[in-house]
Amino acid sequence: MQQLPPFIQKHEGDLWLTENERENLKLSYRVKEIVVSAQSPYQHVMILDSYDFGRMLVLDGVVQTTSLDGFIYNEMISHVPLTMHPHPQTVLIIGGGDCGAAREAAKYESVQQIDMVEIDEMVVKACKEHLQDVSGNLSDPRVRFLYQDGVEFVKGAEEVYDVIIVDSSDPIGPAKQLFELDFYRNLYKALKQDGLMVCQSQSPIFHFDVLEQTYRRIDSLFPVTRMYTAIVPTYPGGLWSFTLGSKRELPQPDDVRFDKETQYINEDILKRCFQLPQFMKTKLSL
Amino acid sequence: MQQLPPFIQKHEGDLWLTENERENLKLSYRVKEIVVSAQSPYQHVMILDSYDFGRMLVLDGVVQTTSLDGFIYNEMISHVPLTMHPHPQTVLIIGGGDCGAAREAAKYESVQQIDMVEIDEMVVKACKEHLQDVSGNLSDPRVRFLYQDGVEFVKGAEEVYDVIIVDSSDPIGPAKQLFELDFYRNLYKALKQDGLMVCQSQSPIFHFDVLEQTYRRIDSLFPVTRMYTAIVPTYPGGLWSFTLGSKRELPQPDDVRFDKETQYINEDILKRCFQLPQFMKTKLSL
Repeated sequence: MQQLPPFIQKHEGDLWLTENERENLKLSYRVKEIVVSAQSPYQHVMILDSYDFGRMLVLDGVVQTTSLDGFIYNEMISHVPLTMHPHPQTVLIIGGGDCGAAREAAKYESVQQIDMVEIDEMVVKACKEHLQDVSGNLSDPRVRFLYQDGVEFVKGAEEVYDVIIVDSSDPIGPAKQLFELDFYRNLYKALKQDGLMVCQSQSPIFHFDVLEQTYRRIDSLFPVTRMYTAIVPTYPGGLWSFTLGSKRELPQPDDVRFDKETQYINEDILKRCFQLPQFMKTKLSL
Repeated sequence: MQQLPPFIQKHEGDLWLTENERENLKLSYRVKEIVVSAQSPYQHVMILDSYDFGRMLVLDGVVQTTSLDGFIYNEMISHVPLTMHPHPQTVLIIGGGDCGAAREAAKYESVQQIDMVEIDEMVVKACKEHLQDVSGNLSDPRVRFLYQDGVEFVKGAEEVYDVIIVDSSDPIGPAKQLFELDFYRNLYKALKQDGLMVCQSQSPIFHFDVLEQTYRRIDSLFPVTRMYTAIVPTYPGGLWSFTLGSKRELPQPDDVRFDKETQYINEDILKRCFQLPQFMKTKLSL
Protein backbone atom coordinates (compact mmCIF):
# COMPACT_ATOMS: atom_id res chain seq x y z
CA MET A 1 0.00 0.00 0.00
CA GLN A 2 1.27 3.41 -0.98
CA GLN A 3 2.09 5.73 1.90
CA LEU A 4 0.24 9.04 2.03
CA PRO A 5 2.27 12.26 2.09
CA PRO A 6 2.27 14.25 5.33
CA PHE A 7 -0.76 16.52 5.92
CA ILE A 8 -2.97 14.27 3.74
CA GLN A 9 -5.58 11.96 5.23
CA LYS A 10 -7.88 9.42 3.68
CA HIS A 11 -11.54 9.34 4.78
CA GLU A 12 -14.03 6.95 3.20
CA GLY A 13 -11.96 6.65 0.06
CA ASP A 14 -11.45 10.43 -0.36
CA LEU A 15 -8.21 12.34 0.12
CA TRP A 16 -8.32 15.43 2.34
CA LEU A 17 -5.79 18.10 3.21
CA THR A 18 -6.38 19.51 6.69
CA GLU A 19 -4.60 22.73 7.60
CA ASN A 20 -3.45 22.57 11.20
CA GLU A 21 -1.87 25.99 11.16
CA ARG A 22 -4.42 27.49 13.52
CA GLU A 23 -5.25 26.13 16.92
CA ASN A 24 -8.95 26.90 16.88
CA LEU A 25 -9.98 26.72 13.23
CA LYS A 26 -9.32 23.90 10.83
CA LEU A 27 -9.91 23.92 7.09
CA SER A 28 -10.13 20.67 5.18
CA TYR A 29 -9.99 20.53 1.39
CA ARG A 30 -11.10 17.49 -0.58
CA VAL A 31 -8.31 16.54 -2.94
CA LYS A 32 -8.61 14.96 -6.39
CA GLU A 33 -4.95 14.29 -6.98
CA ILE A 34 -1.56 14.74 -5.39
CA VAL A 35 0.42 16.23 -8.28
CA VAL A 36 3.69 16.95 -6.46
CA SER A 37 4.79 15.97 -2.97
CA ALA A 38 8.44 16.41 -1.95
CA GLN A 39 10.64 17.67 0.82
CA SER A 40 12.90 20.59 -0.15
CA PRO A 41 15.80 21.72 2.05
CA TYR A 42 13.42 24.36 3.47
CA GLN A 43 9.92 22.94 3.63
CA HIS A 44 7.51 20.28 2.46
CA VAL A 45 6.20 21.22 -1.00
CA MET A 46 2.98 19.97 -2.57
CA ILE A 47 0.90 20.80 -5.59
CA LEU A 48 -2.58 19.37 -5.04
CA ASP A 49 -5.53 19.29 -7.37
CA SER A 50 -8.56 20.10 -5.19
CA TYR A 51 -12.27 19.98 -5.93
CA ASP A 52 -13.26 23.53 -4.99
CA PHE A 53 -10.11 25.55 -5.64
CA GLY A 54 -8.43 23.72 -8.50
CA ARG A 55 -4.69 23.30 -8.18
CA MET A 56 -3.11 24.58 -4.97
CA LEU A 57 0.43 25.22 -3.75
CA VAL A 58 0.77 23.80 -0.22
CA LEU A 59 3.87 24.48 1.89
CA ASP A 60 4.31 22.58 5.15
CA GLY A 61 0.66 21.64 4.93
CA VAL A 62 -0.64 25.22 4.54
CA VAL A 63 -2.38 26.41 1.35
CA GLN A 64 -0.46 29.34 -0.18
CA THR A 65 -2.26 30.02 -3.44
CA THR A 66 -4.81 28.36 -5.71
CA SER A 67 -5.90 28.37 -9.33
CA LEU A 68 -9.29 29.72 -8.27
CA ASP A 69 -8.15 32.91 -6.58
CA GLY A 70 -4.36 33.25 -6.83
CA PHE A 71 -4.75 36.05 -9.36
CA ILE A 72 -6.37 38.36 -6.79
CA TYR A 73 -3.43 38.38 -4.39
CA ASN A 74 -0.80 38.48 -7.12
CA GLU A 75 -2.46 41.31 -9.03
CA MET A 76 -2.94 43.34 -5.86
CA ILE A 77 0.62 42.97 -4.57
CA SER A 78 2.10 43.84 -8.00
CA HIS A 79 0.00 46.35 -9.90
CA VAL A 80 -0.60 48.75 -7.02
CA PRO A 81 3.11 49.55 -6.45
CA LEU A 82 3.94 49.34 -10.16
CA THR A 83 1.18 51.80 -11.02
CA MET A 84 2.21 54.15 -8.22
CA HIS A 85 5.71 54.44 -9.69
CA PRO A 86 5.93 56.79 -12.70
CA HIS A 87 8.43 54.70 -14.67
CA PRO A 88 9.40 51.37 -13.08
CA GLN A 89 12.47 49.82 -14.72
CA THR A 90 14.04 47.55 -12.12
CA VAL A 91 11.87 45.36 -9.91
CA LEU A 92 12.86 43.10 -7.04
CA ILE A 93 10.49 40.40 -5.80
CA ILE A 94 11.37 38.71 -2.53
CA GLY A 95 9.62 35.38 -2.09
CA GLY A 96 6.78 34.99 -4.54
CA GLY A 97 7.79 31.46 -5.48
CA ASP A 98 4.48 30.87 -7.24
CA CYS A 99 5.78 33.32 -9.93
CA GLY A 100 2.45 35.16 -10.04
CA ALA A 101 3.89 38.53 -8.94
CA ALA A 102 6.68 38.27 -11.53
CA ARG A 103 4.11 37.41 -14.19
CA GLU A 104 2.18 40.60 -13.40
CA ALA A 105 5.33 42.75 -13.25
CA ALA A 106 6.26 41.51 -16.71
CA LYS A 107 3.14 43.26 -18.07
CA TYR A 108 4.94 46.64 -17.77
CA GLU A 109 6.87 47.59 -20.88
CA SER A 110 9.03 50.04 -18.97
CA VAL A 111 10.33 47.21 -16.76
CA GLN A 112 13.73 45.98 -17.94
CA GLN A 113 14.71 43.64 -15.12
CA ILE A 114 12.77 41.58 -12.60
CA ASP A 115 14.94 39.96 -9.94
CA MET A 116 13.07 37.18 -8.22
CA VAL A 117 14.81 36.17 -5.02
CA GLU A 118 13.18 33.03 -3.72
CA ILE A 119 14.99 30.75 -1.30
CA ASP A 120 13.32 27.54 -2.44
CA GLU A 121 13.98 26.52 -6.05
CA MET A 122 11.67 23.55 -5.70
CA VAL A 123 8.66 25.85 -5.18
CA VAL A 124 9.43 27.80 -8.36
CA LYS A 125 9.99 24.67 -10.43
CA ALA A 126 6.79 23.02 -9.14
CA CYS A 127 4.67 26.12 -9.83
CA LYS A 128 6.13 26.75 -13.29
CA GLU A 129 5.40 23.18 -14.27
CA HIS A 130 2.20 22.33 -12.43
CA LEU A 131 0.47 25.57 -11.38
CA GLN A 132 0.36 27.54 -14.60
CA ASP A 133 -2.98 29.19 -13.77
CA VAL A 134 -0.96 31.18 -11.24
CA SER A 135 2.58 31.17 -12.63
CA GLY A 136 1.64 31.52 -16.28
CA ASN A 137 4.67 29.32 -17.02
CA LEU A 138 6.72 32.48 -16.83
CA SER A 139 9.55 32.50 -19.37
CA ASP A 140 10.04 36.25 -19.83
CA PRO A 141 13.75 36.88 -20.39
CA ARG A 142 13.63 39.94 -18.13
CA VAL A 143 13.04 37.71 -15.10
CA ARG A 144 16.19 36.61 -13.31
CA PHE A 145 15.64 33.79 -10.81
CA LEU A 146 17.95 33.99 -7.82
CA TYR A 147 17.57 31.10 -5.41
CA GLN A 148 18.86 32.89 -2.34
CA ASP A 149 17.81 34.13 1.06
CA GLY A 150 16.06 37.47 0.46
CA VAL A 151 17.22 38.89 3.79
CA GLU A 152 20.87 38.33 2.84
CA PHE A 153 20.34 39.46 -0.76
CA VAL A 154 19.06 42.94 0.12
CA LYS A 155 22.01 43.56 2.48
CA GLY A 156 24.23 43.85 -0.58
CA ALA A 157 21.96 45.99 -2.76
CA GLU A 158 22.22 49.79 -2.87
CA GLU A 159 19.95 52.13 -4.86
CA VAL A 160 19.27 49.45 -7.43
CA TYR A 161 15.50 49.05 -7.59
CA ASP A 162 12.51 51.20 -8.50
CA VAL A 163 10.00 48.82 -6.93
CA ILE A 164 10.45 46.08 -4.34
CA ILE A 165 7.66 43.58 -3.71
CA VAL A 166 7.90 41.47 -0.55
CA ASP A 167 5.67 38.49 -1.22
CA SER A 168 6.34 36.57 1.97
CA SER A 169 4.52 33.78 3.75
CA ASP A 170 3.34 34.25 7.35
CA PRO A 171 5.81 35.64 9.93
CA ILE A 172 6.58 32.27 11.44
CA GLY A 173 9.66 30.16 10.66
CA PRO A 174 11.90 31.34 7.81
CA ALA A 175 9.69 34.31 6.79
CA LYS A 176 9.88 35.88 10.28
CA GLN A 177 12.88 38.03 9.33
CA LEU A 178 10.90 39.54 6.43
CA PHE A 179 8.86 41.44 9.03
CA GLU A 180 11.85 42.90 10.97
CA LEU A 181 12.89 46.55 11.08
CA ASP A 182 16.42 45.71 9.93
CA PHE A 183 15.05 44.08 6.80
CA TYR A 184 12.93 47.12 5.95
CA ARG A 185 16.00 49.32 6.52
CA ASN A 186 17.86 47.27 3.91
CA LEU A 187 14.93 47.56 1.52
CA TYR A 188 15.09 51.33 1.90
CA LYS A 189 18.79 51.21 1.04
CA ALA A 190 18.21 48.92 -1.94
CA LEU A 191 15.65 51.32 -3.46
CA LYS A 192 16.58 54.13 -5.81
CA GLN A 193 16.00 57.74 -4.65
CA ASP A 194 12.41 57.69 -5.87
CA GLY A 195 11.71 54.01 -5.24
CA LEU A 196 8.91 52.34 -3.33
CA MET A 197 8.28 49.00 -1.66
CA VAL A 198 5.25 46.95 -0.74
CA CYS A 199 4.78 44.02 1.58
CA GLN A 200 1.84 41.89 2.60
CA SER A 201 1.00 42.83 6.18
CA GLN A 202 -1.41 40.06 7.20
CA SER A 203 -5.08 39.92 8.13
CA PRO A 204 -6.79 42.92 9.73
CA ILE A 205 -9.24 40.50 11.34
CA PHE A 206 -6.85 37.99 12.87
CA HIS A 207 -3.39 39.59 13.04
CA PHE A 208 -3.95 43.26 13.67
CA ASP A 209 -0.83 43.28 15.88
CA VAL A 210 1.39 42.22 12.94
CA LEU A 211 -0.39 44.64 10.61
CA GLU A 212 0.07 47.57 12.98
CA GLN A 213 3.70 46.70 13.72
CA THR A 214 4.48 46.45 10.01
CA TYR A 215 2.77 49.74 9.28
CA ARG A 216 4.59 51.51 12.14
CA ARG A 217 7.98 50.11 11.15
CA ILE A 218 7.65 51.11 7.51
CA ASP A 219 6.23 54.47 8.54
CA SER A 220 9.29 55.06 10.75
CA LEU A 221 11.65 54.61 7.78
CA PHE A 222 9.82 55.96 4.72
CA PRO A 223 8.54 59.51 4.22
CA VAL A 224 5.31 58.18 2.71
CA THR A 225 3.39 55.14 3.97
CA ARG A 226 0.04 53.91 2.72
CA MET A 227 -2.00 50.85 3.53
CA TYR A 228 -4.41 49.08 1.22
CA THR A 229 -6.57 45.99 1.38
CA ALA A 230 -7.74 43.20 -0.88
CA ILE A 231 -9.85 40.11 -0.58
CA VAL A 232 -8.01 36.81 -0.47
CA PRO A 233 -10.66 34.09 -0.38
CA THR A 234 -8.37 31.26 0.68
CA TYR A 235 -6.73 33.07 3.59
CA PRO A 236 -8.56 32.95 6.93
CA GLY A 237 -10.41 36.20 7.46
CA GLY A 238 -10.85 36.95 3.74
CA LEU A 239 -9.62 40.53 4.09
CA TRP A 240 -5.87 41.06 3.64
CA SER A 241 -3.62 44.08 4.11
CA PHE A 242 -0.63 45.45 2.19
CA THR A 243 1.70 48.25 3.26
CA LEU A 244 3.40 50.61 0.78
CA GLY A 245 6.49 52.58 1.76
CA SER A 246 7.76 55.22 -0.66
CA LYS A 247 10.79 57.50 -0.73
CA ARG A 248 8.82 60.23 -2.45
CA GLU A 249 5.27 61.52 -2.66
CA LEU A 250 2.85 59.08 -4.28
CA PRO A 251 0.19 60.10 -6.79
CA GLN A 252 -3.35 60.34 -5.44
CA PRO A 253 -5.21 57.10 -6.25
CA ASP A 254 -7.75 59.14 -8.25
CA ASP A 255 -5.00 60.33 -10.60
CA VAL A 256 -3.72 56.88 -11.43
CA ARG A 257 -4.52 55.30 -14.81
CA PHE A 258 -4.55 51.57 -15.42
CA ASP A 259 -4.71 49.68 -18.71
CA LYS A 260 -3.26 46.22 -18.10
CA GLU A 261 -5.18 43.04 -18.87
CA THR A 262 -6.17 41.53 -15.54
CA GLN A 263 -8.86 39.48 -13.87
CA TYR A 264 -9.32 41.31 -10.57
CA ILE A 265 -7.74 44.74 -10.47
CA ASN A 266 -8.94 47.64 -12.63
CA GLU A 267 -8.77 51.41 -12.35
CA ASP A 268 -11.70 51.52 -9.92
CA ILE A 269 -10.25 48.82 -7.68
CA LEU A 270 -6.95 50.71 -7.67
CA LYS A 271 -8.70 53.80 -6.38
CA ARG A 272 -10.82 51.98 -3.83
CA CYS A 273 -8.21 49.71 -2.30
CA PHE A 274 -6.74 52.54 -0.20
CA GLN A 275 -10.10 53.31 1.39
CA LEU A 276 -9.90 51.44 4.67
CA PRO A 277 -12.67 50.03 6.87
CA GLN A 278 -13.49 52.22 9.85
CA PHE A 279 -12.03 49.88 12.50
CA MET A 280 -8.67 49.93 10.69
CA LYS A 281 -8.64 53.73 10.47
CA THR A 282 -9.59 54.00 14.14
CA LYS A 283 -6.99 51.52 15.38
CA LEU A 284 -4.23 53.01 13.21
CA SER A 285 -5.34 56.62 13.98
CA LEU A 286 -5.57 57.39 10.24
CA MET B 1 -22.85 11.25 30.34
CA GLN B 2 -24.39 14.29 28.72
CA GLN B 3 -25.32 13.89 25.07
CA LEU B 4 -23.70 16.29 22.60
CA PRO B 5 -25.97 18.42 20.38
CA PRO B 6 -26.01 17.61 16.67
CA PHE B 7 -23.13 19.05 14.60
CA ILE B 8 -20.82 19.07 17.66
CA GLN B 9 -18.00 16.57 18.11
CA LYS B 10 -15.58 15.97 20.94
CA HIS B 11 -11.89 15.42 20.10
CA GLU B 12 -9.29 14.96 22.83
CA GLY B 13 -11.42 16.79 25.37
CA ASP B 14 -12.22 19.74 23.06
CA LEU B 15 -15.57 20.55 21.49
CA TRP B 16 -15.61 21.26 17.74
CA LEU B 17 -18.28 22.42 15.33
CA THR B 18 -17.69 21.09 11.82
CA GLU B 19 -19.67 22.65 8.97
CA ASN B 20 -20.70 19.99 6.51
CA GLU B 21 -22.51 22.40 4.23
CA ARG B 22 -20.02 22.03 1.41
CA GLU B 23 -19.00 18.77 -0.12
CA ASN B 24 -15.37 19.61 -0.75
CA LEU B 25 -14.44 22.06 2.00
CA LYS B 26 -14.96 21.63 5.70
CA LEU B 27 -14.48 24.25 8.38
CA SER B 28 -14.09 23.22 12.01
CA TYR B 29 -14.31 25.72 14.85
CA ARG B 30 -13.06 24.97 18.36
CA VAL B 31 -15.84 25.70 20.79
CA LYS B 32 -15.54 26.97 24.36
CA GLU B 33 -19.16 26.63 25.35
CA ILE B 34 -22.54 25.62 23.98
CA VAL B 35 -24.69 28.55 25.10
CA VAL B 36 -27.95 27.59 23.38
CA SER B 37 -28.90 24.40 21.56
CA ALA B 38 -32.52 23.77 20.61
CA GLN B 39 -34.73 22.62 17.79
CA SER B 40 -37.21 25.22 16.53
CA PRO B 41 -40.12 24.33 14.21
CA TYR B 42 -37.86 25.42 11.31
CA GLN B 43 -34.27 24.53 12.09
CA HIS B 44 -31.72 23.59 14.70
CA VAL B 45 -30.58 26.74 16.53
CA MET B 46 -27.34 27.13 18.45
CA ILE B 47 -25.40 29.96 20.02
CA LEU B 48 -21.82 28.78 20.52
CA ASP B 49 -18.93 30.53 22.18
CA SER B 50 -15.90 29.85 19.96
CA TYR B 51 -12.22 30.54 20.48
CA ASP B 52 -11.44 32.51 17.32
CA PHE B 53 -14.74 34.18 16.47
CA GLY B 54 -16.37 34.71 19.87
CA ARG B 55 -20.08 33.93 20.02
CA MET B 56 -21.64 32.54 16.84
CA LEU B 57 -25.18 31.92 15.61
CA VAL B 58 -25.33 28.44 14.06
CA LEU B 59 -28.40 27.24 12.13
CA ASP B 60 -28.61 23.59 11.09
CA GLY B 61 -24.90 23.33 11.79
CA VAL B 62 -23.88 26.27 9.59
CA VAL B 63 -22.32 29.45 11.04
CA GLN B 64 -24.47 32.48 10.18
CA THR B 65 -22.81 35.35 12.01
CA THR B 66 -20.21 35.88 14.71
CA SER B 67 -19.23 38.45 17.32
CA LEU B 68 -15.92 38.94 15.53
CA ASP B 69 -17.22 40.01 12.14
CA GLY B 70 -21.03 40.17 12.18
CA PHE B 71 -20.88 43.95 12.07
CA ILE B 72 -19.36 43.96 8.57
CA TYR B 73 -22.21 42.12 6.89
CA ASN B 74 -24.92 43.90 8.89
CA GLU B 75 -23.51 47.36 8.27
CA MET B 76 -23.08 46.67 4.56
CA ILE B 77 -26.57 45.27 3.98
CA SER B 78 -28.20 48.17 5.89
CA HIS B 79 -26.32 51.41 5.49
CA VAL B 80 -25.80 51.21 1.74
CA PRO B 81 -29.53 51.16 0.86
CA LEU B 82 -30.47 53.49 3.72
CA THR B 83 -27.91 56.06 2.59
CA MET B 84 -29.00 55.76 -1.04
CA HIS B 85 -32.56 56.74 -0.09
CA PRO B 86 -33.01 60.48 0.48
CA HIS B 87 -35.42 60.16 3.42
CA PRO B 88 -36.13 56.59 4.57
CA GLN B 89 -39.13 56.40 6.91
CA THR B 90 -40.48 52.87 6.63
CA VAL B 91 -38.10 49.91 6.48
CA LEU B 92 -38.84 46.23 5.99
CA ILE B 93 -36.27 43.59 6.89
CA ILE B 94 -36.94 40.07 5.71
CA GLY B 95 -34.96 37.50 7.65
CA GLY B 96 -32.17 39.09 9.62
CA GLY B 97 -32.97 37.10 12.74
CA ASP B 98 -29.68 38.11 14.35
CA CYS B 99 -31.22 41.63 14.64
CA GLY B 100 -28.02 43.27 13.35
CA ALA B 101 -29.65 44.85 10.30
CA ALA B 102 -32.49 46.26 12.42
CA ARG B 103 -29.95 47.65 14.85
CA GLU B 104 -28.20 49.54 12.05
CA ALA B 105 -31.49 50.77 10.52
CA ALA B 106 -32.43 52.19 13.93
CA LYS B 107 -29.48 54.60 13.63
CA TYR B 108 -31.49 56.70 11.12
CA GLU B 109 -33.56 59.40 12.78
CA SER B 110 -35.84 59.70 9.76
CA VAL B 111 -36.88 56.06 10.14
CA GLN B 112 -40.22 55.74 11.91
CA GLN B 113 -40.96 52.06 11.52
CA ILE B 114 -38.82 48.96 11.05
CA ASP B 115 -40.81 45.82 10.31
CA MET B 116 -38.70 42.77 10.94
CA VAL B 117 -40.29 39.72 9.36
CA GLU B 118 -38.41 36.64 10.54
CA ILE B 119 -39.97 33.23 10.39
CA ASP B 120 -38.15 31.81 13.39
CA GLU B 121 -38.85 33.50 16.72
CA MET B 122 -36.31 31.29 18.47
CA VAL B 123 -33.45 32.79 16.43
CA VAL B 124 -34.45 36.33 17.40
CA LYS B 125 -34.85 35.46 21.08
CA ALA B 126 -31.53 33.60 21.21
CA CYS B 127 -29.63 36.46 19.50
CA LYS B 128 -31.22 39.19 21.61
CA GLU B 129 -30.30 37.35 24.76
CA HIS B 130 -26.99 35.67 23.94
CA LEU B 131 -25.45 37.41 20.90
CA GLN B 132 -25.58 41.05 21.86
CA ASP B 133 -22.32 41.91 20.05
CA VAL B 134 -24.39 41.46 16.90
CA SER B 135 -27.97 42.18 17.99
CA GLY B 136 -27.15 45.04 20.34
CA ASN B 137 -30.03 43.75 22.51
CA LEU B 138 -32.29 45.74 20.23
CA SER B 139 -35.16 47.32 22.16
CA ASP B 140 -35.93 50.28 19.90
CA PRO B 141 -39.71 50.88 19.97
CA ARG B 142 -39.73 51.54 16.21
CA VAL B 143 -38.90 47.88 15.57
CA ARG B 144 -41.91 45.63 15.09
CA PHE B 145 -41.11 41.92 15.23
CA LEU B 146 -43.34 39.85 12.96
CA TYR B 147 -42.72 36.12 13.20
CA GLN B 148 -44.01 35.20 9.77
CA ASP B 149 -42.97 33.84 6.42
CA GLY B 150 -41.42 36.77 4.51
CA VAL B 151 -42.61 35.44 1.15
CA GLU B 152 -46.23 35.45 2.32
CA PHE B 153 -45.88 38.76 4.14
CA VAL B 154 -44.83 40.75 1.06
CA LYS B 155 -47.73 39.40 -1.01
CA GLY B 156 -50.05 41.55 1.09
CA ALA B 157 -47.99 44.75 1.11
CA GLU B 158 -48.51 47.54 -1.42
CA GLU B 159 -46.46 50.75 -1.65
CA VAL B 160 -45.67 50.65 2.05
CA TYR B 161 -41.89 50.72 2.34
CA ASP B 162 -39.09 53.10 1.46
CA VAL B 163 -36.38 50.49 1.89
CA ILE B 164 -36.57 46.68 1.91
CA ILE B 165 -33.61 44.64 3.11
CA VAL B 166 -33.62 40.94 2.28
CA ASP B 167 -31.21 39.39 4.75
CA SER B 168 -31.64 35.77 3.80
CA SER B 169 -29.62 32.66 4.37
CA ASP B 170 -28.36 30.59 1.41
CA PRO B 171 -30.82 29.65 -1.36
CA ILE B 172 -31.31 26.12 -0.10
CA GLY B 173 -34.26 24.92 1.98
CA PRO B 174 -36.67 27.57 3.31
CA ALA B 175 -34.71 30.58 1.94
CA LYS B 176 -34.91 29.30 -1.65
CA GLN B 177 -38.06 31.30 -2.38
CA LEU B 178 -36.27 34.52 -1.37
CA PHE B 179 -34.28 34.23 -4.62
CA GLU B 180 -37.30 33.76 -6.94
CA LEU B 181 -38.57 36.24 -9.52
CA ASP B 182 -42.08 36.21 -8.01
CA PHE B 183 -40.70 37.27 -4.67
CA TYR B 184 -38.81 40.20 -6.21
CA ARG B 185 -41.99 41.17 -8.05
CA ASN B 186 -43.79 41.37 -4.72
CA LEU B 187 -40.96 43.41 -3.26
CA TYR B 188 -41.37 45.87 -6.11
CA LYS B 189 -45.06 46.12 -5.32
CA ALA B 190 -44.42 46.55 -1.59
CA LEU B 191 -42.08 49.50 -2.19
CA LYS B 192 -43.25 53.10 -2.40
CA GLN B 193 -42.85 54.93 -5.73
CA ASP B 194 -39.32 56.00 -4.91
CA GLY B 195 -38.38 52.95 -2.85
CA LEU B 196 -35.44 50.61 -3.17
CA MET B 197 -34.53 47.10 -2.08
CA VAL B 198 -31.35 45.21 -1.42
CA CYS B 199 -30.61 41.53 -1.09
CA GLN B 200 -27.50 39.49 -0.45
CA SER B 201 -26.63 37.76 -3.71
CA GLN B 202 -24.00 35.22 -2.60
CA SER B 203 -20.31 34.74 -3.27
CA PRO B 204 -18.77 35.92 -6.56
CA ILE B 205 -16.11 33.24 -6.11
CA PHE B 206 -18.29 30.21 -5.44
CA HIS B 207 -21.83 31.02 -6.57
CA PHE B 208 -21.51 33.26 -9.58
CA ASP B 209 -24.55 31.54 -11.10
CA VAL B 210 -26.77 32.65 -8.18
CA LEU B 211 -25.23 36.11 -8.22
CA GLU B 212 -25.83 36.57 -11.93
CA GLN B 213 -29.35 35.17 -11.79
CA THR B 214 -30.22 37.50 -8.89
CA TYR B 215 -28.75 40.49 -10.69
CA ARG B 216 -30.61 39.69 -13.92
CA ARG B 217 -33.93 39.11 -12.15
CA ILE B 218 -33.78 42.36 -10.20
CA ASP B 219 -32.55 44.17 -13.30
CA SER B 220 -35.57 42.89 -15.26
CA LEU B 221 -37.97 44.44 -12.72
CA PHE B 222 -36.33 47.63 -11.46
CA PRO B 223 -35.31 50.63 -13.58
CA VAL B 224 -32.05 50.93 -11.64
CA THR B 225 -29.89 48.01 -10.52
CA ARG B 226 -26.51 48.19 -8.86
CA MET B 227 -24.25 45.58 -7.38
CA TYR B 228 -21.80 46.06 -4.55
CA THR B 229 -19.43 43.86 -2.60
CA ALA B 230 -18.14 43.48 0.92
CA ILE B 231 -15.83 41.18 2.79
CA VAL B 232 -17.43 38.61 5.04
CA PRO B 233 -14.60 36.76 6.77
CA THR B 234 -16.67 33.84 8.02
CA TYR B 235 -18.32 33.02 4.70
CA PRO B 236 -16.40 30.77 2.30
CA GLY B 237 -14.75 32.88 -0.35
CA GLY B 238 -14.50 36.02 1.81
CA LEU B 239 -15.95 38.27 -0.89
CA TRP B 240 -19.72 38.72 -0.82
CA SER B 241 -22.17 40.41 -3.19
CA PHE B 242 -25.30 42.50 -2.67
CA THR B 243 -27.78 43.65 -5.31
CA LEU B 244 -29.71 46.92 -5.10
CA GLY B 245 -32.88 47.47 -7.07
CA SER B 246 -34.39 50.95 -7.11
CA LYS B 247 -37.56 52.44 -8.55
CA ARG B 248 -35.82 55.72 -9.22
CA GLU B 249 -32.38 57.05 -10.07
CA LEU B 250 -29.85 56.56 -7.27
CA PRO B 251 -27.33 59.20 -6.23
CA GLN B 252 -23.77 58.68 -7.44
CA PRO B 253 -21.73 57.04 -4.68
CA ASP B 254 -19.38 60.05 -4.70
CA ASP B 255 -22.26 62.34 -3.77
CA VAL B 256 -23.36 60.34 -0.75
CA ARG B 257 -22.56 61.57 2.76
CA PHE B 258 -22.29 59.30 5.78
CA ASP B 259 -22.11 60.21 9.45
CA LYS B 260 -23.30 57.19 11.44
CA GLU B 261 -21.20 55.57 14.14
CA THR B 262 -20.02 52.26 12.74
CA GLN B 263 -17.13 49.81 12.87
CA TYR B 264 -16.71 48.90 9.20
CA ILE B 265 -18.51 51.20 6.81
CA ASN B 266 -17.58 54.84 6.35
CA GLU B 267 -17.98 57.37 3.53
CA ASP B 268 -15.00 55.96 1.64
CA ILE B 269 -16.20 52.37 1.92
CA LEU B 270 -19.61 53.50 0.67
CA LYS B 271 -18.00 54.95 -2.44
CA ARG B 272 -15.68 52.01 -3.02
CA CYS B 273 -18.14 49.17 -2.53
CA PHE B 274 -19.74 49.71 -5.96
CA GLN B 275 -16.43 49.38 -7.76
CA LEU B 276 -16.39 45.77 -8.85
CA PRO B 277 -13.47 43.45 -9.55
CA GLN B 278 -12.72 43.04 -13.24
CA PHE B 279 -13.95 39.43 -13.52
CA MET B 280 -17.35 40.47 -12.14
CA LYS B 281 -17.64 43.35 -14.59
CA THR B 282 -16.63 41.10 -17.47
CA LYS B 283 -19.01 38.28 -16.58
CA LEU B 284 -21.92 40.65 -15.96
CA SER B 285 -21.03 42.80 -19.02
CA LEU B 286 -20.95 45.93 -16.85
